[in-house]
Amino acid sequence: MKIIQLKNHLFLTLMIAAFFSFSVNAQQSLFGGEQIVSPEIHEDNSVTFRVNAPDAEEVKLAGEWMPSEGWTPGSAAMQKSENGIWSFTTEPLEPELYSYSFIIDGFRTTDPNNPFIVRDVASVMNIFIIGGEQADLYKVNNVPHGTVARRWYDSPSLGKNRRLTIYTPPGYENSAEKYPVLYLLHGAGGDEEAWITLGRTAQIMDNLIAQRKAKPMIVVMPNGNVIQDAAPGEGTDGFYKPQFMVPKTMDGTYEASFPDIIKFLENNYRVKAEKASRAIAGLSMGGFHSLHISRYYHNMFDYVGLFSAAILPNQDVSHEVYENIDGTLKTQMENGYELYWIGMGKTDFLYDSGVQYRQKLDSMGMKYIYRESGGGHVWRNWRVYLSEFAPLLFE
Amino acid sequence: MKIIQLKNHLFLTLMIAAFFSFSVNAQQSLFGGEQIVSPEIHEDNSVTFRVNAPDAEEVKLAGEWMPSEGWTPGSAAMQKSENGIWSFTTEPLEPELYSYSFIIDGFRTTDPNNPFIVRDVASVMNIFIIGGEQADLYKVNNVPHGTVARRWYDSPSLGKNRRLTIYTPPGYENSAEKYPVLYLLHGAGGDEEAWITLGRTAQIMDNLIAQRKAKPMIVVMPNGNVIQDAAPGEGTDGFYKPQFMVPKTMDGTYEASFPDIIKFLENNYRVKAEKASRAIAGLSMGGFHSLHISRYYHNMFDYVGLFSAAILPNQDVSHEVYENIDGTLKTQMENGYELYWIGMGKTDFLYDSGVQYRQKLDSMGMKYIYRESGGGHVWRNWRVYLSEFAPLLFE
Repeated sequence: MKIIQLKNHLFLTLMIAAFFSFSVNAQQSLFGGEQIVSPEIHEDNSVTFRVNAPDAEEVKLAGEWMPSEGWTPGSAAMQKSENGIWSFTTEPLEPELYSYSFIIDGFRTTDPNNPFIVRDVASVMNIFIIGGEQADLYKVNNVPHGTVARRWYDSPSLGKNRRLTIYTPPGYENSAEKYPVLYLLHGAGGDEEAWITLGRTAQIMDNLIAQRKAKPMIVVMPNGNVIQDAAPGEGTDGFYKPQFMVPKTMDGTYEASFPDIIKFLENNYRVKAEKASRAIAGLSMGGFHSLHISRYYHNMFDYVGLFSAAILPNQDVSHEVYENIDGTLKTQMENGYELYWIGMGKTDFLYDSGVQYRQKLDSMGMKYIYRESGGGHVWRNWRVYLSEFAPLLFE
Repeated sequence: MKIIQLKNHLFLTLMIAAFFSFSVNAQQSLFGGEQIVSPEIHEDNSVTFRVNAPDAEEVKLAGEWMPSEGWTPGSAAMQKSENGIWSFTTEPLEPELYSYSFIIDGFRTTDPNNPFIVRDVASVMNIFIIGGEQADLYKVNNVPHGTVARRWYDSPSLGKNRRLTIYTPPGYENSAEKYPVLYLLHGAGGDEEAWITLGRTAQIMDNLIAQRKAKPMIVVMPNGNVIQDAAPGEGTDGFYKPQFMVPKTMDGTYEASFPDIIKFLENNYRVKAEKASRAIAGLSMGGFHSLHISRYYHNMFDYVGLFSAAILPNQDVSHEVYENIDGTLKTQMENGYELYWIGMGKTDFLYDSGVQYRQKLDSMGMKYIYRESGGGHVWRNWRVYLSEFAPLLFE
């Protein structure tokens, strides 16, 4: 039997030709000479951004770290070099996960040389991480890693199968141990993808657990929009442009249906099915949900976290969940709990309502821990709150 | 105890103010008046694309469905309306998952009104689906859904923990049954994210299983680049621009280490640990890997799929895996197998090497099924090949 010798150059041919194989876009960026590094993080943590736009008349960089003026986000003019590549180098930046975009002749767009993109509601934006300090928690470090699963559960209350994101800690699959659960809820415009992308939940939990600062726990990130079975593009509604506020997000339906999720977890995972091993926390609308779920089901959670939470329901909404708020809070207090944690940024637009809510709790004698941070209603704060809240759980 | 009444407008305030809360980019797109629908799929499957670029002088649409001229991808001029919004409407398109991008004054970019973006090597591009026929397999339909997990496994041969993507079929978690496994390998420039994003593996498998066209099976999508522990941005190397060919991808190391992955699966999942319940398939470089893994470990797989496969190793590479190719193929044949499936596009640059390989198999008397499709070395074909290959497995 004769071996058919293929030509020696096949391997090289594969390398070259496959440049043209994957898609129009891949072809362009791989072969089009756009071998630009952007962003380039320098040793002193200054960052250079570059973009090839030879025909543009004005290119600006809009970065999350730039001070905004009122509602106008900050931006900086980029400089054009002779080869048509525009660039801008920042001052050294503090450790953080930052988002940014380019504005090319007034058109806001992503950086074609940075494939790291996250979606926030309907916007996509590039991200990068300046490491060090708190931001090291956001990196994938050389530590044991948990598993992140997208899984569907049945919600009889809502009459549909729905998708959720579940983090199981390192070692979960190879032990017989039962684990406590943190239910972690997103804000308006978010979905079951929000905490795992912009929230960096898997990285934060992996790192905190490796440092023995947090107990190994399961973190469940459900979808809080009851009209959806899944995040836009991931469910049976197909691809559509996400909205900021979808119907029925804060009308009591989700809160009332929440035991479906707990039941799913406790029937399908090795979970400690007891109040002492349940925590619920959320950001903004998810803080609102956490407040009302933990109060309505007033003997279900030993740990509650309100991150930049919206507080009281729209007075036009009528639902059993929102009746007798003070009475059920009092019952929750009397039933006892381990931790009621409230985080708020100094410049958050919800700051005043948080003050009023804490006055209510004070007047009731309901104990809580209050953490006030700088900044406003932003992911930077919610990553910090998760990093500080998780170590307090299941002691 | 007095109830503190928050102002009635809190809910509205939340809605408005939160528009400005998430990020600079989200703020812009949500409040900046860019309430544009793009792409808009019409009833006849024509599609309108729109982009707001009032200062641009020329805007083009580059779509995967447009005929390319040689290595120059096709594009079409978009028309500017008085309000500065450019648009273009296609002819009715055939059912398919399509990618596209805009070229604004020569700058290739994503569609800011379409948050559905996938990465292919270092490029990001928008996608949309025209449903019907084959493309209905790519949609999330109202059928039972499997679970998709990103999980880390230990590879002693490579000396590192590595990330892989695992699809477990609907019902896996709630049965005591053992399942067969398809190992599904990516091409050069890909990683453990490739098959689940552009490959639509979870949707294809959910739909085929619901239609009883494929047996419930586990699908494992490992990372075939041995220098990586995970996809760029998902591993300890942090965020960096992905390359098309990384070192050591086709030097035998990955093929030799493959039993680490099988061992991980068989130790950690309810898996039928037998040749009759193991399939391996891959696209391009992953087809090369599948060919050589199934031949080198010549009694391990009853099902082999070569999708647009690269065939023979670079003659400059020396590794035990690539020695005695014909002898080990012969042994593989003599050991017996259920299916050896070869798919190739008529215009694929690897077409001729596929012809030669089939001649080799013919001369040996080694049986295979050959499927020739239209088109070239593209994802469109690999989704079709997976859809046709999976139903033939584990009969």
